Amino acid sequence: MAPKALDYESLNEKVKKVQYAVRGELYLRASELQKEGKKIIFTNVGNPHALGQKPLTFPRQVVALCQAPFLLDDPNVGLLFPADAIARAKHYLSLAPGGLGAYSDSRGIPGIRKEVAEFIGRRDGYPSDPELIFLTDGASKGVMQILNTIIRDEGDGILVPVPQYPLYSATISLLGGSLVPYYLEETANWGLDVNDLRHAVFQARSKGITVRAMVIINPGNPTGQCLSEANLREILHFCYRENLVLLGDEVYQQNIYQDERPFISARKVLMDMGPPLSKEIQLVSFHTVSKGYWGECGQRGGYFEMTNIPPESVDEIYKIASISLSPNVPAQIFMGLMVSPPKPGDISYEQFIRESKGILESLRRRARIMTDGFNSCRNVVCNFTEGAMYSFPQIRLPPKAIEAAKRAGKVPDVFYCLKLLEATGISTVPGSGFGQKEGVFHLRTTILPAEEDMPAIMASFKKFNDEFMEEYEDHRGYSRM
Amino acid sequence: MAPKALDYESLNEKVKKVQYAVRGELYLRASELQKEGKKIIFTNVGNPHALGQKPLTFPRQVVALCQAPFLLDDPNVGLLFPADAIARAKHYLSLAPGGLGAYSDSRGIPGIRKEVAEFIGRRDGYPSDPELIFLTDGASKGVMQILNTIIRDEGDGILVPVPQYPLYSATISLLGGSLVPYYLEETANWGLDVNDLRHAVFQARSKGITVRAMVIINPGNPTGQCLSEANLREILHFCYRENLVLLGDEVYQQNIYQDERPFISARKVLMDMGPPLSKEIQLVSFHTVSKGYWGECGQRGGYFEMTNIPPESVDEIYKIASISLSPNVPAQIFMGLMVSPPKPGDISYEQFIRESKGILESLRRRARIMTDGFNSCRNVVCNFTEGAMYSFPQIRLPPKAIEAAKRAGKVPDVFYCLKLLEATGISTVPGSGFGQKEGVFHLRTTILPAEEDMPAIMASFKKFNDEFMEEYEDHRGYSRM
Repeated sequence: MAPKALDYESLNEKVKKVQYAVRGELYLRASELQKEGKKIIFTNVGNPHALGQKPLTFPRQVVALCQAPFLLDDPNVGLLFPADAIARAKHYLSLAPGGLGAYSDSRGIPGIRKEVAEFIGRRDGYPSDPELIFLTDGASKGVMQILNTIIRDEGDGILVPVPQYPLYSATISLLGGSLVPYYLEETANWGLDVNDLRHAVFQARSKGITVRAMVIINPGNPTGQCLSEANLREILHFCYRENLVLLGDEVYQQNIYQDERPFISARKVLMDMGPPLSKEIQLVSFHTVSKGYWGECGQRGGYFEMTNIPPESVDEIYKIASISLSPNVPAQIFMGLMVSPPKPGDISYEQFIRESKGILESLRRRARIMTDGFNSCRNVVCNFTEGAMYSFPQIRLPPKAIEAAKRAGKVPDVFYCLKLLEATGISTVPGSGFGQKEGVFHLRTTILPAEEDMPAIMASFKKFNDEFMEEYEDHRGYSRM
Repeated sequence: MAPKALDYESLNEKVKKVQYAVRGELYLRASELQKEGKKIIFTNVGNPHALGQKPLTFPRQVVALCQAPFLLDDPNVGLLFPADAIARAKHYLSLAPGGLGAYSDSRGIPGIRKEVAEFIGRRDGYPSDPELIFLTDGASKGVMQILNTIIRDEGDGILVPVPQYPLYSATISLLGGSLVPYYLEETANWGLDVNDLRHAVFQARSKGITVRAMVIINPGNPTGQCLSEANLREILHFCYRENLVLLGDEVYQQNIYQDERPFISARKVLMDMGPPLSKEIQLVSFHTVSKGYWGECGQRGGYFEMTNIPPESVDEIYKIASISLSPNVPAQIFMGLMVSPPKPGDISYEQFIRESKGILESLRRRARIMTDGFNSCRNVVCNFTEGAMYSFPQIRLPPKAIEAAKRAGKVPDVFYCLKLLEATGISTVPGSGFGQKEGVFHLRTTILPAEEDMPAIMASFKKFNDEFMEEYEDHRGYSRM
């Protein structure tokens, strides 16, 4: 009989070509080991609550009340919920006719899009238009929607930083476009050199690819760097000259662990630059409730904001969003709460600040512990995590380890990470899943394990790594030459 | 300057080609009118809570507690929540490490997929494998994932019933496949004739299209019919002979308004048929928390179950699901609750049964009121809504109305529905959005307006319709010939 449509050999080739390492071989092996009873430390995904981060109390109270609106009529509600959470739940229910069980408009609830616009306005100092903000089921879904609108065929190229978050490579593969890599410079703390961009575009053109858009991830994933204002200006000039849409993945904008380079949005820099750029450059910026000190990954809430996108294109994006009817409504409420948290004087303000500061300060300490830990290991060098949630150490694999990997049929960093997993239970993602320069190897880990567990985890890593290096290093080769 | 990537003229043509009438011209006009202060009755989408249906109390209590797990430690929790809701919340939190804020596995929480498998096993009398069940952000997302796996290019055809739910036409356009229509027979209560299927496949082949899959919507949307067991057997035989994957959209399986034709799942019929069919036919079945007596549309919860899909294809579908990390977790809990509602003896059982029976019995009465109402109108004929949530009356537009529509630059049924909207505030979807035979016109409305509002709505419809017919009917032509 002929193969059936869902037999492997007859599946859509674009589906088969996709690679997604964050939940790839390492994750699958870790899941198996966990089933067998081994203790696994999942640092493969930026998933703070899975590693014990507690949710912020106030937003959870509000959303719980929105889920159970009948509680608002219960005379005992004040025993379990503070008055400002009750008031806020009533506010959101008034914005969402039909409550959390009704589809909203496909762009999201108008009143919440307005709150997002006000947040952006306060952040950047330039007003934002709610009609150009779409709420989404997490930022990833927004990125996929926009790339689907841009990519027509394999002749369309998207500039993506390497190392990159594999959402981009996976989505571009799935949509049949071409990923055009530009390399971040590890020795310059993962800085972005505009000459590299020019070179990347030149190379793509010589292959017949039309570069249509550029992705920046700021703060960087997996690289953790924060883009400076000067760098953002260069990028915007470049997009203007090359006629590129800029996609600004800014989901880690609240995750900053140093004071020298605060987060600045691409939109603010663009607006600061004034016309013609501020009127011409097409920019789409992405944000989420999954990161920051919220970490509400499982709720799947996000938004994108469009700048200089013509109304008829916005209509097309709206139409496509409509096929799935609406983003989930509870996460829309989380987004509303994220952009308008409790204010000084509110009953819940102090607790909210205590909780959120506690999380951010601990993340800052963990970023430092982790960087220092990696740098204390043999053949490991690691840039400091300026922002985001990841550490991306370079692992200098000895030639004998590379040969052993080849014999085992594995990419060298996969080989290393699998051995790390088996020895320690630490589930990381090999650098090859993000892209890296030829012959250079990394791994990505989140900085999210609980602070009190961190010293033991880093000690366990060091013990594994140093023994691994001991085993595979050619002592003659290294020490005597 | 050359057009930019997000200028309309340079967008992905597949995006532009998509049509999605459920939130198309009529919905946009209705939204405008609502902004201007007109009272709109939104019957364009099956969105029960938006029209006043109250959520079921027990599941909302459980999910509220899962959102605010700190309440479980509060000594006053029993004042607001019954003990069985508290126990159930603890149960789901034990299945979801990290709670609602953590990404789950990309297929959904294993423990909930197990509950879904048990539900399917009880329903069909054949065990189901949790590893072949994926939870999704609503059934639509599942349909899109599966079609994306099947469709390679425009040479791949998908058999879709006409009239159809435009999710299918829109998704097939977006993915660049070919929709192969098979017509349901209105005069046979929207029955499916296998000869029509054969004819459709023959026609598609003559155009060089490989038909790869067949969609059935049971109960039907927008047509409301329930497929008989005999009909399902014929369909399965046909899929076997033609080597087609069967996609069973069974989201309305709890919405049945007559006793002659209960819902039977495609999977049960397939299993009843035994080998070779039960071992060979590839079947994917879809379900949701958005319909039934739940109507939890805004939560975006669904699942699909795969039968006879080889493991390496399941792995590919898993990989693609991983790009978006996980379906939203609160809706996964709703799915768990839907497939394992309170049992006799549970504290909340009586209330749950009272609420759910109340909703279903009222829907049954509303289906009757609406059908009878349409059939009392001039030039309107309407099949009874056996299941699902829609009424799909045929509107016999007089030639003068068709001419007037042409002069206004509108498709005739769009013309009629726009006039209906302006006159009455009733927001429907023109039949052309679902497909219909040439020269025949319909509209789709949900049966969801509150029962007490129904008589007034139907009276308002009748008044508009009969006046419209009076205006456009050629009395000489009709009465004297």
